[in-house]
Amino acid sequence: MNFLEERIIKDGIVKEGNILKVDSFLNHQMDIGLFNEMGAEFARRFDGLPINKILTIEASGIGIACIVAEHFGNVPVVFAKKSQSVNLDGEMYMADVASFTHKNTNHVIVSKKFLDSSDHVLLIDDFLANGCALQGLISICDEAGATVEGIGIAVEKGFQPGGEKIRSMGYRLESLAIVESMDAKTGNIIFREQ
Amino acid sequence: MNFLEERIIKDGIVKEGNILKVDSFLNHQMDIGLFNEMGAEFARRFDGLPINKILTIEASGIGIACIVAEHFGNVPVVFAKKSQSVNLDGEMYMADVASFTHKNTNHVIVSKKFLDSSDHVLLIDDFLANGCALQGLISICDEAGATVEGIGIAVEKGFQPGGEKIRSMGYRLESLAIVESMDAKTGNIIFREQ
Repeated sequence: MNFLEERIIKDGIVKEGNILKVDSFLNHQMDIGLFNEMGAEFARRFDGLPINKILTIEASGIGIACIVAEHFGNVPVVFAKKSQSVNLDGEMYMADVASFTHKNTNHVIVSKKFLDSSDHVLLIDDFLANGCALQGLISICDEAGATVEGIGIAVEKGFQPGGEKIRSMGYRLESLAIVESMDAKTGNIIFREQ
Repeated sequence: MNFLEERIIKDGIVKEGNILKVDSFLNHQMDIGLFNEMGAEFARRFDGLPINKILTIEASGIGIACIVAEHFGNVPVVFAKKSQSVNLDGEMYMADVASFTHKNTNHVIVSKKFLDSSDHVLLIDDFLANGCALQGLISICDEAGATVEGIGIAVEKGFQPGGEKIRSMGYRLESLAIVESMDAKTGNIIFREQ
């Protein structure tokens, strides 16, 4: 087991409805030392790629993405926003994203000022389940003509279809922990061998 | 002028309606090197305080808070969430926050697991205008019995009442840039001498 799998075993909680709560260290309270370990591991896995920007989606991707950026030479981080704000004007890339967690659909937007065909992007997010958030970010990169160099995920739910969908599209997807199965009754979590 | 004031002069855009757009480096695209300078400056201003946790609010406070945390010995960062998620259960602290930017009111929630009377908290946010977000975070700390050791803000709009309100409550509030006035016609921005 790697450092993140060990931490999930130690502090993750399995709930009914295929919910894995990691809110004590990943997506409500955030362990910055752990995020640095994740950044170092992504830098190792994506070594040599010409990544010049990180793209993530609010809210729980942002903290991870910012710390990960330090391991890629402080490249700028852009986060896709979930609703149009009066502070945002001009032209936007837009995609629709269904949320597994919140049971709704959001528009996500990225200003055209911050993504274009010169960009080589690393996508970062905390969770991958059905892949809807990632597909939204990929569609925004496609619209911008930007190159998706890789996708870094903290926790992938291997028993949901997102990972296979994204890999079958040809993207280089690295998930630091892939949950193969989990059991809310026993609290048991099995990870995929990588 | 300090480094953040210089950056605002260089890349900030003044819009009608008292809007200062800093989305190219602060709250849509994020400059991680700049965030590290901000973290170092907050560490200098809040030196010696027994800060063991950073509390911020989604979404644009999160990136700054995570990088700032590295300058406070990697203390955990908790972000207040803007809506109840099915992934959040158990007891929550809750406050209502009106948003100047989005012209609406949100419930913000923090799990009681991650804030209690043993905590000495630094509040971090990108903007301070009317102070509603900060008052929500302060009320959550009060409810938890946590001590607010200080408040670190990137950009304060000095011509709006939030800063005076928070300072008159006795909190130690440090804003890296305080905009005294700005003019959408000329693009001119005047900062308060600190």
